Amino acid sequence: MAGESAQRRGVVQGPDGPAKVTITEIAREAGVSVPTVSRVVNGRSDVSPATRARVKDLLDRYGYQRRPGALRAPAALLDLVFNDLDSPWAVEIIRGVEEVAHESDVGTVVSAIHGRAGAARQWMTNLRSRASDGVILVTSALAPGLHDELRLLGVPLVVIDPAGAPATEAPTVGATNWAGGMAATEHLLGLGHLRIGFVEGPSRLLCSRARLDGYRAALDVAGVPVERELIVPGDFYHESGFTGCNRLLDLAQPPTAIFASSDQMALGAIEALRRRGLRVPEDMSVVGFDDLPEVRWSAPPLTTVRQPLSDMGKLAARVVLDLARSVEPAALRIELATELVVRASTGAPREV
Amino acid sequence: MAGESAQRRGVVQGPDGPAKVTITEIAREAGVSVPTVSRVVNGRSDVSPATRARVKDLLDRYGYQRRPGALRAPAALLDLVFNDLDSPWAVEIIRGVEEVAHESDVGTVVSAIHGRAGAARQWMTNLRSRASDGVILVTSALAPGLHDELRLLGVPLVVIDPAGAPATEAPTVGATNWAGGMAATEHLLGLGHLRIGFVEGPSRLLCSRARLDGYRAALDVAGVPVERELIVPGDFYHESGFTGCNRLLDLAQPPTAIFASSDQMALGAIEALRRRGLRVPEDMSVVGFDDLPEVRWSAPPLTTVRQPLSDMGKLAARVVLDLARSVEPAALRIELATELVVRASTGAPREV
Repeated sequence: MAGESAQRRGVVQGPDGPAKVTITEIAREAGVSVPTVSRVVNGRSDVSPATRARVKDLLDRYGYQRRPGALRAPAALLDLVFNDLDSPWAVEIIRGVEEVAHESDVGTVVSAIHGRAGAARQWMTNLRSRASDGVILVTSALAPGLHDELRLLGVPLVVIDPAGAPATEAPTVGATNWAGGMAATEHLLGLGHLRIGFVEGPSRLLCSRARLDGYRAALDVAGVPVERELIVPGDFYHESGFTGCNRLLDLAQPPTAIFASSDQMALGAIEALRRRGLRVPEDMSVVGFDDLPEVRWSAPPLTTVRQPLSDMGKLAARVVLDLARSVEPAALRIELATELVVRASTGAPREV
Repeated sequence: MAGESAQRRGVVQGPDGPAKVTITEIAREAGVSVPTVSRVVNGRSDVSPATRARVKDLLDRYGYQRRPGALRAPAALLDLVFNDLDSPWAVEIIRGVEEVAHESDVGTVVSAIHGRAGAARQWMTNLRSRASDGVILVTSALAPGLHDELRLLGVPLVVIDPAGAPATEAPTVGATNWAGGMAATEHLLGLGHLRIGFVEGPSRLLCSRARLDGYRAALDVAGVPVERELIVPGDFYHESGFTGCNRLLDLAQPPTAIFASSDQMALGAIEALRRRGLRVPEDMSVVGFDDLPEVRWSAPPLTTVRQPLSDMGKLAARVVLDLARSVEPAALRIELATELVVRASTGAPREV
């Protein structure tokens, strides 16, 4: 099959115009396969130097020329980079980015750099070789050197959910995490809860800090003291919600409600409660954050703060494609609204 | 920033060698932006014909040549195509494919074609323009014309979870769906269940049919009659598990266990049971299929058949990259083993 491709991409010409010799014959003469000839023609690196020299020699001798038009324009691509592809959260972002990119005939290259310098460096090398038109970085921080390299390449960058104080002037797209944290906490206060546990996200992420600050602000507004023991660490994954919930239940005076600042941690908390024979929401109310599709189907369906993840992906794609076309984006720091979605995991506190 | 990029990619030369004129001056003379000149140089389509002609004219007049080496080799890419990016299932496949592709310095372009002919046609046009090295198609069927086109382009194809009788001779990667269906059913039979409901997947997919046949085979082996009313339709999504479970509960003689042939349908079934005040597994056992990461955290944690989704992605990537390098894959029809994972959603039937 690769042979047909090679033949489609070029014709072999002698000095006086198209010769009768085909790329298949070149391959035979060189003692290699047709795809190998094709790879040499296309400048690919996966051919041994000796073979490359032999094939190039034959191509030169027959005056091989690629068809006019066979030199493709750089393909339109954008790079979408995650730290890890390990959460249903990621697919929501991918869906949004892909939808907008697809409408613009741009391909979405998805990568995971696992927070490792080596992987990020390799990704940058590949990015350069595929001449991507733009980069969307999700929650991830690149080493400053890589930011400089992107800038030198002239590849625009947009960051979804920045990890910290922005390392570049790159536009960012996020959600109103602070307002969402406040709304969830106000909902629990409104139901009559006064001791509300909070399971944090990773503190290096701005979105985590904003959710915690929203929780604190709602308590402050209501005149309820913020108690340090009610705030437990987490990393947005299930296990930390499970552990965090157990820590809260082991307090001398446990909370009557838990606000886990991601849906996955909320599901982990519900499992911890279930194992202790506690019912949600009768014995403990639980609120999450994200509104992943599956939490409509958790037992019970989860009250949560909806982040418009696929819309965030869409918007980031629009901004990065605008930048690639030298259109100034309307705004550099965009936060899409979050929304409290009340389902069955929250209710009034039990009479003590 | 795009201007730096344009300047890096080429130098403007006069007939006697490099001229002093820069691309910035070309842009000024043409009355366009530097990125626009860059786009014309790079043969991009997003420039109006009039502007393109004006810029080309100036480039010709100054004898513009791209730097040697500026003509990049086609970037190493593979295309991973889903019908829809709407399931946590997708991210597992993406993770596996990306991991292998990344190791080979190949970028993974993720697309959704939404089962629509127009989107598939557009994707094919883009694939051609980016000269992808290979295609992995997930559960999806392309129109036969597109299969022919791929073959003509010489782009190798691998199918994960083929939708039906393969339209091409493309290698396929799947899981042992039949064996998994049998193992789940045998587990329930072993617990003492004799009336076992089954929620089907889409019948157009071979994996759905194989799971159903595994269920039937296990019943047959145990001498338990297969009852048509216990088999209800579904589409692998939550809602259909919810509806399917309700249908089973409304039977004159409901089952004592439900085998939903996807995890999402199993979660939907558990929600239907919860709404009727029925407990899992005390009142009804539930088994899923997939072992998505989140079902360890469902309430209760789900007994399910593990499909090695990310391994399937890895294997498909290896096969397609082998084909792109003209290495014959070891096998053309590969099924990775499924494995029953027993958690808390299954138990003995209630004494009637």
